Amino acid sequence: MSKLSTVTRRLLLGRPFRSDRLSHTLLPKRIALPVFASDALSSVAYAPEEIFLVLSVAGLAAYSMAPWIGLAVAGVMLVVIASYRQNVHAYPSGGGDYEVVTTNLGPTAGLTVASALLVDYVLTVAVSMSSAMSNIGSAVPFVNEHKVWFAIAAILLLASLNMRGIRESGTAFAIPTYAFMIGMFIMLGWGFFQIYALGTPLRAESADFEMHSEHGDILGFALVFLVARAFSSGSAALTGVEAISNGVPAFRKPKSRNAATTLLMLGAISITLFMGIIMLAKATGVQIAERPLEQLGGAPADYHQRTLIAQLADAVFHDFPVGLYLIAGVTALILVLAANTAFNGFPVLGSILAQDRYLPRQLHTRGDRLAFSNGILFLAFGAIAFVVAFQAEVTALIQLYIVGVFVSFTLSQIGMVRHWTRLLRTETDPGARRRMVRARVTNTIGFLCTGTVLVIVVVTKFVVGAWIAILAMAALFGIMKLIHRHYASVSAELEARAEEIDDLVLPSRNHAIVLVSNVHMPTLRALAYARATRPDVLEAITVSVDDAETRQLVHKWEHSDISVPLKVIASPYREITRPVLGYVKRLIKDSPRTVVTVFIPEYVVGHWWEQLLHNQSALRLKGRLLFEPNVMVTSVPWQLSSSERLKKLAPQSAPGDARRGFLE
Amino acid sequence: MSKLSTVTRRLLLGRPFRSDRLSHTLLPKRIALPVFASDALSSVAYAPEEIFLVLSVAGLAAYSMAPWIGLAVAGVMLVVIASYRQNVHAYPSGGGDYEVVTTNLGPTAGLTVASALLVDYVLTVAVSMSSAMSNIGSAVPFVNEHKVWFAIAAILLLASLNMRGIRESGTAFAIPTYAFMIGMFIMLGWGFFQIYALGTPLRAESADFEMHSEHGDILGFALVFLVARAFSSGSAALTGVEAISNGVPAFRKPKSRNAATTLLMLGAISITLFMGIIMLAKATGVQIAERPLEQLGGAPADYHQRTLIAQLADAVFHDFPVGLYLIAGVTALILVLAANTAFNGFPVLGSILAQDRYLPRQLHTRGDRLAFSNGILFLAFGAIAFVVAFQAEVTALIQLYIVGVFVSFTLSQIGMVRHWTRLLRTETDPGARRRMVRARVTNTIGFLCTGTVLVIVVVTKFVVGAWIAILAMAALFGIMKLIHRHYASVSAELEARAEEIDDLVLPSRNHAIVLVSNVHMPTLRALAYARATRPDVLEAITVSVDDAETRQLVHKWEHSDISVPLKVIASPYREITRPVLGYVKRLIKDSPRTVVTVFIPEYVVGHWWEQLLHNQSALRLKGRLLFEPNVMVTSVPWQLSSSERLKKLAPQSAPGDARRGFLE
Repeated sequence: MSKLSTVTRRLLLGRPFRSDRLSHTLLPKRIALPVFASDALSSVAYAPEEIFLVLSVAGLAAYSMAPWIGLAVAGVMLVVIASYRQNVHAYPSGGGDYEVVTTNLGPTAGLTVASALLVDYVLTVAVSMSSAMSNIGSAVPFVNEHKVWFAIAAILLLASLNMRGIRESGTAFAIPTYAFMIGMFIMLGWGFFQIYALGTPLRAESADFEMHSEHGDILGFALVFLVARAFSSGSAALTGVEAISNGVPAFRKPKSRNAATTLLMLGAISITLFMGIIMLAKATGVQIAERPLEQLGGAPADYHQRTLIAQLADAVFHDFPVGLYLIAGVTALILVLAANTAFNGFPVLGSILAQDRYLPRQLHTRGDRLAFSNGILFLAFGAIAFVVAFQAEVTALIQLYIVGVFVSFTLSQIGMVRHWTRLLRTETDPGARRRMVRARVTNTIGFLCTGTVLVIVVVTKFVVGAWIAILAMAALFGIMKLIHRHYASVSAELEARAEEIDDLVLPSRNHAIVLVSNVHMPTLRALAYARATRPDVLEAITVSVDDAETRQLVHKWEHSDISVPLKVIASPYREITRPVLGYVKRLIKDSPRTVVTVFIPEYVVGHWWEQLLHNQSALRLKGRLLFEPNVMVTSVPWQLSSSERLKKLAPQSAPGDARRGFLE
Repeated sequence: MSKLSTVTRRLLLGRPFRSDRLSHTLLPKRIALPVFASDALSSVAYAPEEIFLVLSVAGLAAYSMAPWIGLAVAGVMLVVIASYRQNVHAYPSGGGDYEVVTTNLGPTAGLTVASALLVDYVLTVAVSMSSAMSNIGSAVPFVNEHKVWFAIAAILLLASLNMRGIRESGTAFAIPTYAFMIGMFIMLGWGFFQIYALGTPLRAESADFEMHSEHGDILGFALVFLVARAFSSGSAALTGVEAISNGVPAFRKPKSRNAATTLLMLGAISITLFMGIIMLAKATGVQIAERPLEQLGGAPADYHQRTLIAQLADAVFHDFPVGLYLIAGVTALILVLAANTAFNGFPVLGSILAQDRYLPRQLHTRGDRLAFSNGILFLAFGAIAFVVAFQAEVTALIQLYIVGVFVSFTLSQIGMVRHWTRLLRTETDPGARRRMVRARVTNTIGFLCTGTVLVIVVVTKFVVGAWIAILAMAALFGIMKLIHRHYASVSAELEARAEEIDDLVLPSRNHAIVLVSNVHMPTLRALAYARATRPDVLEAITVSVDDAETRQLVHKWEHSDISVPLKVIASPYREITRPVLGYVKRLIKDSPRTVVTVFIPEYVVGHWWEQLLHNQSALRLKGRLLFEPNVMVTSVPWQLSSSERLKKLAPQSAPGDARRGFLE
């Protein structure tokens, strides 16, 4: 254990760097709720509407089933929340579904969950932004007419904000989330109050249309299928519930209990809003159709079907038109925040996958801006592709959306069942055993429930879009498997083998070569540095691309007080790389135990265009030299004055910081 | 002089590399002619047609002026050829107009010529390809309907062929050029023979239309202006005449005389074809109009005006329809070859400009494939932009084309006058003086002539397009000036200053750091190499991104027989760059005269996607470290087995090889 204490002492060396970063604050529940809840809450903006939309296919009569379907969704949500409360207690490390599944069901199942989650993040952005634009479009017709462009612009804006690194603050999350919650509660409360207490009959703008079924009467199996599909679409309300299980470490102590409580709060609010919206829609007689102009008898020819939320707000605040704008605004705001959570979660999951060698290794370093940028770009372009392909239609996108969520729910719950079974094998304390058995029952119910929903979702949605999501997951799964295999094979290739170590231990000679193009400061510095490495042989070489220039250089060299000999290498075809490469190859061939160190003076510049004007030949030469065994390439930098401007590394904040408890 | 002999001896070191390149063959005149003539000859495919087109604005009566305008163009061509024969003798080095002008009129005039030539190369590609597609389109209507797309595809094809590096052979130039020459001579000969010897009245398909002027009668100044503009357009026949003066070194000895003779041959053939086409067009009554459907009375509503060459071929080979296809084919072929000469000439000129620090330095190395690729891409995209902007209409593009040519003609001739004047100042031999005076007279006439044409071109073409070409030239001129200024300021910054050299000569200590992520072969090699450089201090450092991994690494390290101490640097935010940078900075601060050498094990891989999976963190770290003074970064390569496939550098052939005398 003395070794560990050395490690600890050495770890202290890193201390001074903490100060220039954001500080690590643990989240109280009132801040944790908005930080993690926007995704789950925002889905009530579209989930109830989708239930009505699907039912409309069977005509108005089918609307009577909406509250029952709503209750079924609410029931599943309760089960899922109960299950995830177990996850939070069992895995307080914040690994989320990926960790639970990998630990308990093995890496293949874990990778399946990871693929599902990655696809889900992309779809979260696409669905949330499309829905946000529909809601704004319900208040501002111009936005509705150019919904796709507005959605694309919003995604790009969000992506660029995240790339620059938003300083995340609790307030930034709290204001839109609480505004949405308050707005919705006021709308629902005032609506129900008018209807039931004041007796004012609130009628939605679409209440008086005559809805007719698209395909005549739908009965028997077709009706069951339709109800099942409506239920599937409504299950979109469950997306985002799992977010808290990824963020346990950011909670104040007792972390797990606080997280579990927050989860319960989130569930209670979600279900209330969800059921409230459905009931108010029934009460105001809103009619939402898949093809409004065909299905809604009596609708004017230029009828534009607004979102359910907008129609409700319009009916409730009929005397106070600003209400509609406020409700549309806060709804859009929380949807944008939900899209933003994907921009936070995607790179975090990416860094965990990189740690496990499923994604490029460099994504692993969390603080790295470039690694994040790649993830953000990937996410943004994926979401834009979906938005364009489905013309920012929430109804179309939602068909793809829910598969991934329920794949990870289901696998996570099986994983938890296994987890408890394993613990029960060794646990002897009766109290603990009782709690574990109870938790296992909860997770088993969770598994059965989410598994059933998954089957229903796949069956009812496969042909209308789910296949695309499944295909995307399979592709990601395949790519990550291949990356993993590549790293494994490289790792095997690199394992230190005893017999080869001897070869490596000490090269017999160090032959240093300094590449010279002119007698100037960078060259002199390179020579001085090369001499400081005390090589066995030190020589300067120059490639004669232009005879006159070379003659001048040799003349200058001989008249300077440089004691290092200068060798001129001919280059009849005015190349640089090949002659140097050939010279180095010959050196190695002549004495195989020699290391050749090539010193290349390199200009350090401050503008990208200066990079184009300098170093290009050197870079390419370096690229080729590295293919030769026994050759080291040393860059001796010369800082041009323009490089000063890039010298300072600005402290960066990474997206998702708040979810990990880093706040300003 | 003993120094030079050392240089010479050292130059011999390069010898072995000559063998794996193309051999240098000098061109006999019969091969030199096609290699350099395609550009000049191909312009007879469109220049005569443009004369008729412009004249058509004034109606059929104006056609009578065509032969006189043709004679004027031929006269200018004779003068230009006579002048360039002087250039060839005076500047046998192949520097061309840029060299002549820079030497005699200074760098600003030289840069003007260079800008003009660069723009010209782009336009040569655009005009030649558009004309090629018009000619094929005259035989194959489908090509005509999608002319723009075909022209773009052809440019991209040519660009990609040149990027891959075509092995140029004399035959590849000779066949299309001689085929074109023979085809044209047969067409002209058989046409005139039928008319004048057999008395067969040949009538072109457009001969019987009734052409009317667009603007009623054109008289006085307007007519003069129109004739001048027709002359300007016809002067397009002169483009490419200067090519031989760039290629003198590729000729067999006596180089200058052979080049001058070839120039004369080229001129004779060009003028014969040019005048022959004009006369045959008159004889067969071809009518070519700017707006055929409006100007040609009696033309059917779906009339498609074919190129002049196609109409002539159709009339001459009326009994032998294949003749039209053959003529259209060889015409298109030589036009493609003409476009190809731009792909050759552009990078060659680029390398000369890079040598003079007007373009990025790396373009200077001739053998470098990447440098050429950039030039080729620039040229291709420039030409495509022009083709798209002007819808592949030769008539529109030609308005831009001729300015550049005559700018360089004119400046080159002034330069030559100065050249002879300078030589005459010191020359005393009466025979030589006589020759020089004669040459000076020739060049003076050349200057007056080309200068007049330049004025006519600018005046008659400015508003219809020449301003675009002039703007492009000005932009290039500005950019190259800025690049030159940048290099000059860097060069001043780098000049070795005596007082600073002392600082550089010997750093007192070399502190070596090996970056470790794992105990494996690349690390061991890096350690062994680092030890071989015998630093004053050698230590290994690792960044603790993941505690468990770090503990494992430390454990492995302590149990191996590595004697180098391992330092662990904490990275609370899972970064790599910043903690290493901080550590290095502290080392330098503690002892300023120390050099810190950072050894980074680097994987050498064989596929681009492997590069994405490895080295990224190392590369970024290196990028940051270079900003620190007194830090050297050494890459210790580890060749993964996949790198084998890239190890062999295939010998490359560069575009334009044939023009420089490199043939297979």
